[in-house]
Amino acid sequence: MTPNSNDFNADALAALPLRENLRGMTPYGAPQLDVPVMLNTNENTHPVPTDVVESIGAEALQAARSLNRYPDREFTELRRRLAAYLGEGLTERQIWAANGSNEILQQILQAFGGPGRSVLSFPPTYSMYPLLAEGVSTRYIAGIRNDDYTLTATSASVQVEEHAPNIVILCSPNNPTGTALGLDVIEAVYEASDACQSMVVVDEAYAEFALEGTRSALTLLPGRPRLIVTRTMSKAFALAGARLGYLAAAPEVTDAIRLVRLPYHLSSMSQATANAALAHVDSLLATVEEIKVQRDRIVDGLRELGLRPAVSDSNFVFFGGLSNASEVWQRLLAFGVLVRDVGIANHLRVTAGTAEETSAFLDAMRRILEDAPELAQ
Amino acid sequence: MTPNSNDFNADALAALPLRENLRGMTPYGAPQLDVPVMLNTNENTHPVPTDVVESIGAEALQAARSLNRYPDREFTELRRRLAAYLGEGLTERQIWAANGSNEILQQILQAFGGPGRSVLSFPPTYSMYPLLAEGVSTRYIAGIRNDDYTLTATSASVQVEEHAPNIVILCSPNNPTGTALGLDVIEAVYEASDACQSMVVVDEAYAEFALEGTRSALTLLPGRPRLIVTRTMSKAFALAGARLGYLAAAPEVTDAIRLVRLPYHLSSMSQATANAALAHVDSLLATVEEIKVQRDRIVDGLRELGLRPAVSDSNFVFFGGLSNASEVWQRLLAFGVLVRDVGIANHLRVTAGTAEETSAFLDAMRRILEDAPELAQ
Repeated sequence: MTPNSNDFNADALAALPLRENLRGMTPYGAPQLDVPVMLNTNENTHPVPTDVVESIGAEALQAARSLNRYPDREFTELRRRLAAYLGEGLTERQIWAANGSNEILQQILQAFGGPGRSVLSFPPTYSMYPLLAEGVSTRYIAGIRNDDYTLTATSASVQVEEHAPNIVILCSPNNPTGTALGLDVIEAVYEASDACQSMVVVDEAYAEFALEGTRSALTLLPGRPRLIVTRTMSKAFALAGARLGYLAAAPEVTDAIRLVRLPYHLSSMSQATANAALAHVDSLLATVEEIKVQRDRIVDGLRELGLRPAVSDSNFVFFGGLSNASEVWQRLLAFGVLVRDVGIANHLRVTAGTAEETSAFLDAMRRILEDAPELAQ
Repeated sequence: MTPNSNDFNADALAALPLRENLRGMTPYGAPQLDVPVMLNTNENTHPVPTDVVESIGAEALQAARSLNRYPDREFTELRRRLAAYLGEGLTERQIWAANGSNEILQQILQAFGGPGRSVLSFPPTYSMYPLLAEGVSTRYIAGIRNDDYTLTATSASVQVEEHAPNIVILCSPNNPTGTALGLDVIEAVYEASDACQSMVVVDEAYAEFALEGTRSALTLLPGRPRLIVTRTMSKAFALAGARLGYLAAAPEVTDAIRLVRLPYHLSSMSQATANAALAHVDSLLATVEEIKVQRDRIVDGLRELGLRPAVSDSNFVFFGGLSNASEVWQRLLAFGVLVRDVGIANHLRVTAGTAEETSAFLDAMRRILEDAPELAQ
């Protein structure tokens, strides 16, 4: 059994009338291996706080009593709570939510993309963007970053003018490199998209982990009806299992999404879970500061080992300076530490976990490089 | 505020670069009105049994403890339980689940439909089919039924040969008309689709309510790799709020869906809820027999009133013989009874609820026709 595919059988599949552009593909997803230290999917590795667990349990029990009825199709209470959490004067009319930010992005692509339309993003970035585009038949345009994976306002806006995409997705902090964009980049891209009337999506899945002084694109929403900021409860809120992504934008953007969303897409249990969690924001976000400390420890520790970590505004660290990334990945696994090989030569990505997990990762890295110094460039 | 749209603002939306084919549309969805007797969305109006509520609450509390981690992407336990529930020798490799059968159908359309491809169905039928097709840019072909809304094996297979669609969707029991297809129709359609290699989907959302002697298309799965049977826990299982749809098919069909599903699309809470419910199948399905009794009462009662109910294998009754269906809909609402105007002249659709709800509906109908006999044709 291959770890991502649950006996995925390509031969049998080939006999089915699959869409041509899916032929030869394998399912997306990180390997799901059961090891002691799992730092591969940028989860929040801190346990869900007890008060939050109890509150979710109580709300879920309450929701269970009326599960025979469809959920609130407009999830009004949840939108109100998310607006209050984000602040910035946002109202519930500006909020939309779905089963993970993947579904949010898919809905955006369905509303504003589709056949004959295009979406521009800047790899290396979240690897689901091209797959989401493919799934709804939107042409994916791979923009270009600087050699150090940064993206400047000038470069980004020149590329928007050149390609005139229908949608631009800017990931900030960027996954897998970890660095946030300055708001000047987002402002410039929005301005450059005036001519082609692109929707500009800023994927802020990791925003809560940003370094001191980093501003959210939420502050740019007023007066920019084509700007969408997406967020998730999977990371800072430690609720990856709850699958709750959301967006903030002009109210008419949420109306556009209403045209393509599946009716009742957000279950009563999802709404109850998210509402319960949002009643405990302080408790849930308490781990964020601790994770930032560990993230900075990883950056410092990898530098001390002679490796080259990128600036991280997120709960993970992307680092280069390896001569053979997949060999290091394998050796980390032998130490019981699972990190992510994102397919970029000489680089790996590691999630900032608890203090113990961080120590386990750094100790393993140190021992690997002591055993085989040639694995560092 | 219009009831389906939460202040949907078409004017503001018109200024956004929406996909051309969505322009002028309004969001899908039945009006959400708060009235005493809600019989408009074919929910199971019986309360969730106490043992099921408690079991869901306990499983949800347990799931809440590890919500910081992503869910099991393959929801293996749930697939195992669903296979056991369906029987027919099915294994977990033949099962797939998603957030409602709408998402199941969307995933099927993404895998086997898309631009340049088509899906054939037979209106009047589930009104989401054309919208789901539109959402993933698949051409929708409206087949033709007999004048009494039935569909014969010959007629259906001739239409399949004529249109050579990539996907055929047969809704059985059909929504909104309520009648199940004979397996001869499904066998004939499958055989007719040999030449064009269509995927044949049988939507059995209401299968558990079928009249004595009606056989499920599940029995046709062996040896038919292009056949897919979809089901839901929303109706017989009284779990509309849980949003849990699923399918049974050849294992390679589930592999095809794995190529287009969003990773981790099924939350830990959804998996826990469905698993808990499936541990109480007998308790949940106990209401099905009671609902069938009420369904038959509605059919008999409407006939006594001189109206023309269709044969129903489902938890709802489609009835004709009204001179002005929207006037009757409105008068029912004045009695606190909400039914569904499915947009077919002279017809309405009513869900079979509890004995009390059924009496409220039948009493209101009788009084309406006593007050205004001209409302019956």
